[in-house]
Amino acid sequence: MKKDALNIYDIAKMAGVSIATVSRVVNGSDKVSETTRQKVLAVIDEVDYTPNVFAQGLGLKTMHTVGILVPTIVDHYMATAVSYLERGFKEQGYDCILGCSGFDAEGKHAKTEMILTKHIDALVYVGSTYAGDGRDEGTTDYIREAAKQVPVFIINGSVEGDNIYCAVCEDEQASYEAASLLTSHGRKDILFLSDSRSYSAINKKKGYQRALSEAGLDPDEGVIFVDDDIHAVRDTLFRMDRKIDGILAVNDKIAAGAVKYAVESGIRIPGDIEIVGYNNSQLAISSTPEISSVDNYTELICDDTVSRLMKILDDREAKPQRETRFPCTLIYRETTG
Amino acid sequence: MKKDALNIYDIAKMAGVSIATVSRVVNGSDKVSETTRQKVLAVIDEVDYTPNVFAQGLGLKTMHTVGILVPTIVDHYMATAVSYLERGFKEQGYDCILGCSGFDAEGKHAKTEMILTKHIDALVYVGSTYAGDGRDEGTTDYIREAAKQVPVFIINGSVEGDNIYCAVCEDEQASYEAASLLTSHGRKDILFLSDSRSYSAINKKKGYQRALSEAGLDPDEGVIFVDDDIHAVRDTLFRMDRKIDGILAVNDKIAAGAVKYAVESGIRIPGDIEIVGYNNSQLAISSTPEISSVDNYTELICDDTVSRLMKILDDREAKPQRETRFPCTLIYRETTG
Repeated sequence: MKKDALNIYDIAKMAGVSIATVSRVVNGSDKVSETTRQKVLAVIDEVDYTPNVFAQGLGLKTMHTVGILVPTIVDHYMATAVSYLERGFKEQGYDCILGCSGFDAEGKHAKTEMILTKHIDALVYVGSTYAGDGRDEGTTDYIREAAKQVPVFIINGSVEGDNIYCAVCEDEQASYEAASLLTSHGRKDILFLSDSRSYSAINKKKGYQRALSEAGLDPDEGVIFVDDDIHAVRDTLFRMDRKIDGILAVNDKIAAGAVKYAVESGIRIPGDIEIVGYNNSQLAISSTPEISSVDNYTELICDDTVSRLMKILDDREAKPQRETRFPCTLIYRETTG
Repeated sequence: MKKDALNIYDIAKMAGVSIATVSRVVNGSDKVSETTRQKVLAVIDEVDYTPNVFAQGLGLKTMHTVGILVPTIVDHYMATAVSYLERGFKEQGYDCILGCSGFDAEGKHAKTEMILTKHIDALVYVGSTYAGDGRDEGTTDYIREAAKQVPVFIINGSVEGDNIYCAVCEDEQASYEAASLLTSHGRKDILFLSDSRSYSAINKKKGYQRALSEAGLDPDEGVIFVDDDIHAVRDTLFRMDRKIDGILAVNDKIAAGAVKYAVESGIRIPGDIEIVGYNNSQLAISSTPEISSVDNYTELICDDTVSRLMKILDDREAKPQRETRFPCTLIYRETTG
């Protein structure tokens, strides 16, 4: 038998056991019966490989490494999530390696393939962009492909499939509550500023629209697409020349641009206009006035992801909860009344 | 000969050629003479390995992957640098994988070893923390160890050694110029706020101290160590209860804390106090007033790093410039007069 034609599937088939079992034998796990262990080792012997060389050559031996993919690291939400994941996995004796995929389908596919070659035990996608827009299942096929090789976790997005686990924050509800706060203050001209059509941005928009509809306001005319840049947002609002008394932004950078607009226009915050950001980041704090912002409990979500993933890595056949959902809370600062 | 005892050094030695030459042969490079190629292939044949299996088994075959290490990704400077490196390497057909090492020696060593197992063609360290404090050469030994395996680049730090390449920004000069601007405006009580004792922070401090000495001011009494947190910096300044008419901060987050202090104390900016940040980040822009900040040309430095590294990867014996130095420029906004 030609050695380099062998792979773990061949060994599993020849031994009549699952791939997971071969993996356990090769890695010296004590969760395999002695009979099974001997059967697998006999096959490995037969094809003239020592378990160790076999394991290393085929990337089977666990390297205690978790792969993380983000669309971009120049985003405070994603950078923060990565740092919490890093910390959590480190406590469990796992290293993390990170790849940046960009937002387009080609980059997501390519980087998924790339990071799967790096001997990772599991893959975590951070960001709702990986879940597509929730309408076309096909756009998430690459995630189901990856899940055939390692357990896959998604942070802030929901994708169906075997070996895929999700953590989702209740963006729709949080956005609904924030917009309802503004309508309850009698605000009539409330904008929804978004730079994205991701799963998360769409949920935030739905919440905003639900609140406006309930208050008898037009749910569509305030939805504005903007660039994710402080000065660009400010300038867009200047150009609109429109009465505005409330703004809900999908992130704090956009909210900071809205604050600039109001401050430079001499519009009083929160007297004449109320502004709510999202992510509860340093940008909300560096702004003057400081921005009320939705905290989406990134730390909690990341800790939960680490904890569920460790269940699987400790016992490859464990099935933790497939999807966990987390509420969000508005942190009140100076831009709401 | 036992196969799994073999490594690239053995093959190179047996063939009487360099490791780089073995690598070229294995990877099918046309930069090897036919005679040499045959000699290397004969050795590989002799020990019963096909070049391909050999290359893959020993991690020799290029995976077109560059490893990047940062101390933390929740830092705008580092996140921005990573994104520029990503973009540059992608244009050259290389993927990047990223690891976060933390700031302590143990983490730096461990993550260096980890990322070297991931079949990387080169390693880039981002951040002056990797260069130590410039006093103890021993603290950078792990970088020289890594450089025995792959070419190593350091962004914003200088370390001596074979196969180590550095890009350094002229922080000392930039900091000198910023502090000199304040002394030239007649400022007498200028603080230097820093959260770090890294190579870069030390250089910034030197520049500040040179400017103050030249202006006949005490170069030491204004040097203050602070936490890297907007509110913590503000509160530290509140507690100091000291006359201050100028602040130079090692990053924009600290400068944003100084702005908070002045705004909340009713101190006029820039009339009564001038504030200069560093990194020219979104935090400088989200602040009101917007913060004058030193731009350290991260994009230029990263592009230069990609370009020098590609020279080596295209021809393993190429020797690009060992150290390149870049100036910085103060971007004037609303916190300087």
